[in-house]
Amino acid sequence: MVNDRLTTVNFIAPVQDLIPKVEARMHTQADRHHPDLKLALDHLLSSGGKRIRPAIALLTGKMLGADPDKLVTLSAAIELLHTATLVHDDLIDGALLRRGIATLNSQWSPAATVLTGDFVFARAAKLAAETESLPLMHIFAETLATIVNGEITQLFSSRGLVSREDYDNRIYAKTASLFELATKAAAMLSPVDEQIVEKARAFGYNLGVAFQIVDDVLDFTGEQATIGKPVASDLRQGLVTLPALYFMEDYPNFPEMQAILSGRPFNDGVMDRLLKSIRESGAIQRAMDEASRYVDCALVLLVDLPDCPEHESLKDLANYIIHRKF
Amino acid sequence: MVNDRLTTVNFIAPVQDLIPKVEARMHTQADRHHPDLKLALDHLLSSGGKRIRPAIALLTGKMLGADPDKLVTLSAAIELLHTATLVHDDLIDGALLRRGIATLNSQWSPAATVLTGDFVFARAAKLAAETESLPLMHIFAETLATIVNGEITQLFSSRGLVSREDYDNRIYAKTASLFELATKAAAMLSPVDEQIVEKARAFGYNLGVAFQIVDDVLDFTGEQATIGKPVASDLRQGLVTLPALYFMEDYPNFPEMQAILSGRPFNDGVMDRLLKSIRESGAIQRAMDEASRYVDCALVLLVDLPDCPEHESLKDLANYIIHRKF
Repeated sequence: MVNDRLTTVNFIAPVQDLIPKVEARMHTQADRHHPDLKLALDHLLSSGGKRIRPAIALLTGKMLGADPDKLVTLSAAIELLHTATLVHDDLIDGALLRRGIATLNSQWSPAATVLTGDFVFARAAKLAAETESLPLMHIFAETLATIVNGEITQLFSSRGLVSREDYDNRIYAKTASLFELATKAAAMLSPVDEQIVEKARAFGYNLGVAFQIVDDVLDFTGEQATIGKPVASDLRQGLVTLPALYFMEDYPNFPEMQAILSGRPFNDGVMDRLLKSIRESGAIQRAMDEASRYVDCALVLLVDLPDCPEHESLKDLANYIIHRKF
Repeated sequence: MVNDRLTTVNFIAPVQDLIPKVEARMHTQADRHHPDLKLALDHLLSSGGKRIRPAIALLTGKMLGADPDKLVTLSAAIELLHTATLVHDDLIDGALLRRGIATLNSQWSPAATVLTGDFVFARAAKLAAETESLPLMHIFAETLATIVNGEITQLFSSRGLVSREDYDNRIYAKTASLFELATKAAAMLSPVDEQIVEKARAFGYNLGVAFQIVDDVLDFTGEQATIGKPVASDLRQGLVTLPALYFMEDYPNFPEMQAILSGRPFNDGVMDRLLKSIRESGAIQRAMDEASRYVDCALVLLVDLPDCPEHESLKDLANYIIHRKF
């Protein structure tokens, strides 16, 4: 099933044998616990996701010579950490669907949802410990704090007010920090020196920033059926992402934008007009150009890393990030 | 302030210099994060608690020769793990007060409360990693999973239905697992062999079971003003603890008990009559006798551990657990 999801790009080929092991490792984390936890975990994992974080960790680690078993453990830890944050996010947002599948909070009580998220955090931490690397545990825990701090900052931020710096901080916390963890931790499990670890980290960072910018672009350009949520869902909630930020630079007093960011009720016509204007402006292309610059940075960082099939796959993956449609 | 709380017993004397370091270590965990997180953490830590878990970890570790700095880190990690679970617990229960202080969820949105709990988990994990002990990280993550699994089991359990085995599992997950972590982890940071680590673990386990049984007794015998919550609050929620379990053994068909456990509305008169009957029955004494047996077990385990002021304090602490009034 995981492979089906990824047939559009073949970047996981060199680690194809490891992906099912990551899946198995995640699914068994609720064994010997309450049966409903097992059901919840299976549901959460079945709801898909591109498994892009595990893929990046596996490819980076295999390229650099890490032990495959450790990489499987690390990848499962990272994907579960990601999953746990989504469980609490969806609860907080009251989201009913994620990638077209019912969220946990849409079917369970808030209490059960909070605790299931906590449980998944606990299992992610346990898996991280099983990599038997203390420096890895440090950055794992630090990344969790970064992600949560980012969510709290977003929660407490004034609606619609955002600078480029705020945006950069937010997407680092939300996405790039975990991509960076995936590549840095994989390198830390490999027989390589500090400089290579730093290059791997920076590669993951740039990939993560590009990934989130493209996500934010897709929120404006995608179709609801493809991206699995209403178009411009961020802006509807008063969240200004890069395309909107660029648009506001060019049109600082656009009435529909001001209406929507005011937090007062607005009708569909207002949003439709704004969306059309953003789509027709240069803002979308500027944001995609920015994402491309981050991908270019990532590709430059790859040059000094070992030439091998995984290296080629990481290049493909970087390009996929820019060209994906969902 | 911490010392004031503990003047009724002097068991922290041998680690008196370390307790303020634990406090400081905890308070600084939100530095360089969102200012409201700092406020929230300060509020959570000011709301008190007896700091019994840090005391046990510090005394055990100092008795066994652990490095004091590592013990401070461990103790802060354990108390923050405890704090994080309370934040989510109070949210789930809708509790407005804990130890007479407003809970976070009574003042903040559910979203902010969930995320603050997550943040405190993250900082606890970070501190645990800073002990630089991988086996310690393993048991730390495992304990978090045990605690959360216990809460989920309780959430999904049928009202009023409980066996002694269920009760034992619940209080292990709720309390004894963290006491056990405190003493075992402290021993693991000490230059001692496996047998001593196992004795320390079992000491913490027995202490934790006794502590929770006494907590459950105080829920029946205490005054609301002293214990900081309504008397028999567990039973009001359909939760059967050891005194109620013993009472039901002697009076299997007591009408007021059946009325309350049925989940249907009941008036104060029903609860008052049941409470009076439980207090006048032998159930309270039987539960206290059971707690005493666990304390006795703990004291026997101490015999083989080094004779020193910390050893004496751990004895005092074990006795305090039985004789405390809140």
